[in-house]
Amino acid sequence: MTQQHDGLLSQDQALPRPDLTPSDRLYWQEEGRCSQARAGWLHTRHGRVPTPTFMPVGTVGTVKGMTADAVRATGAGVVLGNTYHLMLRPGADRVQKLGGLHRMMDWPGPILTDSGGFQVMSLGPLRKMDEDGVTFRSHIDGSSHRLTPEISTDIQFKLDATISMAFDECPALPATKERLEESMERSMRWAARSREAFTPRPGYGQFGIVQGGTEQDLRARSVKALTEIGFEGYAIGGLAVGEGQELMFSTLDFTTPLLPQDKPRYLMGVGTPDDLLGSVMRGCDMFDCVMPSRAGRTARAYTDRGPLNLRNARFAEDTRPLTPHEDGPLARTSRAYLHHLFRANEMLGPMLLTWHNLAYYQRLMRRIRAAIMNGTLEALAEQLRADWAQGDWSPEEWPLPHYS
Amino acid sequence: MTQQHDGLLSQDQALPRPDLTPSDRLYWQEEGRCSQARAGWLHTRHGRVPTPTFMPVGTVGTVKGMTADAVRATGAGVVLGNTYHLMLRPGADRVQKLGGLHRMMDWPGPILTDSGGFQVMSLGPLRKMDEDGVTFRSHIDGSSHRLTPEISTDIQFKLDATISMAFDECPALPATKERLEESMERSMRWAARSREAFTPRPGYGQFGIVQGGTEQDLRARSVKALTEIGFEGYAIGGLAVGEGQELMFSTLDFTTPLLPQDKPRYLMGVGTPDDLLGSVMRGCDMFDCVMPSRAGRTARAYTDRGPLNLRNARFAEDTRPLTPHEDGPLARTSRAYLHHLFRANEMLGPMLLTWHNLAYYQRLMRRIRAAIMNGTLEALAEQLRADWAQGDWSPEEWPLPHYS
Repeated sequence: MTQQHDGLLSQDQALPRPDLTPSDRLYWQEEGRCSQARAGWLHTRHGRVPTPTFMPVGTVGTVKGMTADAVRATGAGVVLGNTYHLMLRPGADRVQKLGGLHRMMDWPGPILTDSGGFQVMSLGPLRKMDEDGVTFRSHIDGSSHRLTPEISTDIQFKLDATISMAFDECPALPATKERLEESMERSMRWAARSREAFTPRPGYGQFGIVQGGTEQDLRARSVKALTEIGFEGYAIGGLAVGEGQELMFSTLDFTTPLLPQDKPRYLMGVGTPDDLLGSVMRGCDMFDCVMPSRAGRTARAYTDRGPLNLRNARFAEDTRPLTPHEDGPLARTSRAYLHHLFRANEMLGPMLLTWHNLAYYQRLMRRIRAAIMNGTLEALAEQLRADWAQGDWSPEEWPLPHYS
Repeated sequence: MTQQHDGLLSQDQALPRPDLTPSDRLYWQEEGRCSQARAGWLHTRHGRVPTPTFMPVGTVGTVKGMTADAVRATGAGVVLGNTYHLMLRPGADRVQKLGGLHRMMDWPGPILTDSGGFQVMSLGPLRKMDEDGVTFRSHIDGSSHRLTPEISTDIQFKLDATISMAFDECPALPATKERLEESMERSMRWAARSREAFTPRPGYGQFGIVQGGTEQDLRARSVKALTEIGFEGYAIGGLAVGEGQELMFSTLDFTTPLLPQDKPRYLMGVGTPDDLLGSVMRGCDMFDCVMPSRAGRTARAYTDRGPLNLRNARFAEDTRPLTPHEDGPLARTSRAYLHHLFRANEMLGPMLLTWHNLAYYQRLMRRIRAAIMNGTLEALAEQLRADWAQGDWSPEEWPLPHYS
């Protein structure tokens, strides 16, 4: 146990970390490959980030429950901001007056903003779509707002997003092929308008979003349309919306090979540790998901032995750290203390478990990246899946410290 | 502005900070004096702390919204735990099994625990008092519990409190003299029983609590009773319970001169920055209060220019830090961002403002201590009061950075 622990820690320390060396153009450089999986560096105006990378979600300009210092300490390279939330509060013009999102939230590294398309679609009856864009009511105060490809791109400019996303429509699955086709084609028209509205700046970029649901021919047509327009990177949208892991993976299987080899690929809204592993193995480089932070707030910890629910009574006197791989404040935090904090509804519980989960996701990405570089990704994947299935470390395997 | 800022920072850095050098007995050593005000060091098993000192409240084993690292970073030396809350959740036996409160909450420095007396008294109809102790119902699940001087002292032993408090009764003010006398005398009998039940250990100690409301003769009799028993320190209880600052100060004026010169004095549950200043000038060395942390959660910031409410719309585009004296994450946090976080109900707002308020209280204590050592406390007090009265820094005095 101790040997494995020490071994992993030193391996982690040798792995690349994001740095703030700014680049005068936004590009991705491949550094290694293992079957479909790619290791690389994403170079941006706000620093360079090793890929594959998981990007914590900072919806309204904060990763919930984390200081920017804490997010940095987990090893995160890029954080996300949400156009929809930020345009409502505090407003794009205000963010611009405050010096942009980087300065506002004390995150000098790269920031990717979504276009607002996905959030607006999920408003249901509160929104009305036409060929030009979407009119919707704020979930906060019911006020009326409008997003079009041009408006969304302008907002992302004002937010000072390192990476802007094209404005698109994301239909819920399952959907008829007709609906998927119509929606994909509109998204491609919107992608062209988004690109037109984008202001190129050194080290900044814009990604197009591949749509088409789980339909191979629609995905192929979407890729063709986007690559003809030309973006600094390509996102795969319209997945992780209820179709299940198998359909998601099979869609990736026929989509990623169509994408340019020299551009970064961002799988939107994914996912569990196992989703990330499988998607990296299918050629994706960038990920975002609220799962690790949201789970952290509800006492769920992701670990090498699968998820643990810290509210469970069996942790009440478990004096071990959450896992053998903790650092920072988690290294000195027992499972029993975390259990106590959640039982007592203390803020520190969500704070520490969000920290743990985000650090776990970053560590997972670093291990996957190292395995790609070493050509041992298949072996790591087998090991990870076996460990996840095995369940929590037993007291025999990893003894509890006893203090009395 | 900049000069004043730099000057204060370097002065701060030269001031003493708590350290973890353990002492084999618990004692207080005077280092300087300015009229009634005292500067000193409190030596304990868990390190030494410069006094006067403000002790953040960690009710159920966490200073709300703060990691232990963050509490340390503010310069805090001692933290508080609450016997009442901890006996209910997670329970004293469990805390002991987890290695004591220091280990459980990752606070290797000194911990002071209150005796539960004050909390139990405030339960009102949920509690029943007799000569031997108090029976009460838990505010969490209604279960029945009992506290006596012996039980409270035993719980504090199990929590591994560096400083235990004698179990006492604290009547609400105003109260008849008869009621105050009866209550004080019972508290003195309970103090003797608490002392009897206390297990002396190297570097640990127990404080008696002076009661007697605002009555001079009762306070004098209470001091006499406690000093005859003999404690490592003396607390002044029964104040800051609604009597107002004037009555509190006049009670201190006749109480502190009666206390031993060579023992630390702890004024319980106090208070505002102005309360702390006035109480140090009346000979008190130690303080605790939920005010800075609770205020932080409700958007209220204590500053050298008085309190600011960060929900106020005038902060929406104020790009300055909260004050010119911030360090840590607050140094890179604008008022506008704090305003946004509170408007959006984001956890990071309470987290950052609690941090600021606790750091402000620690900095205030360091400045007061330095002034005691330099014999300039009167001048500092005048300066502080004038600054507090002046109100927020104007944009003329301290210009806003403009980014667009």
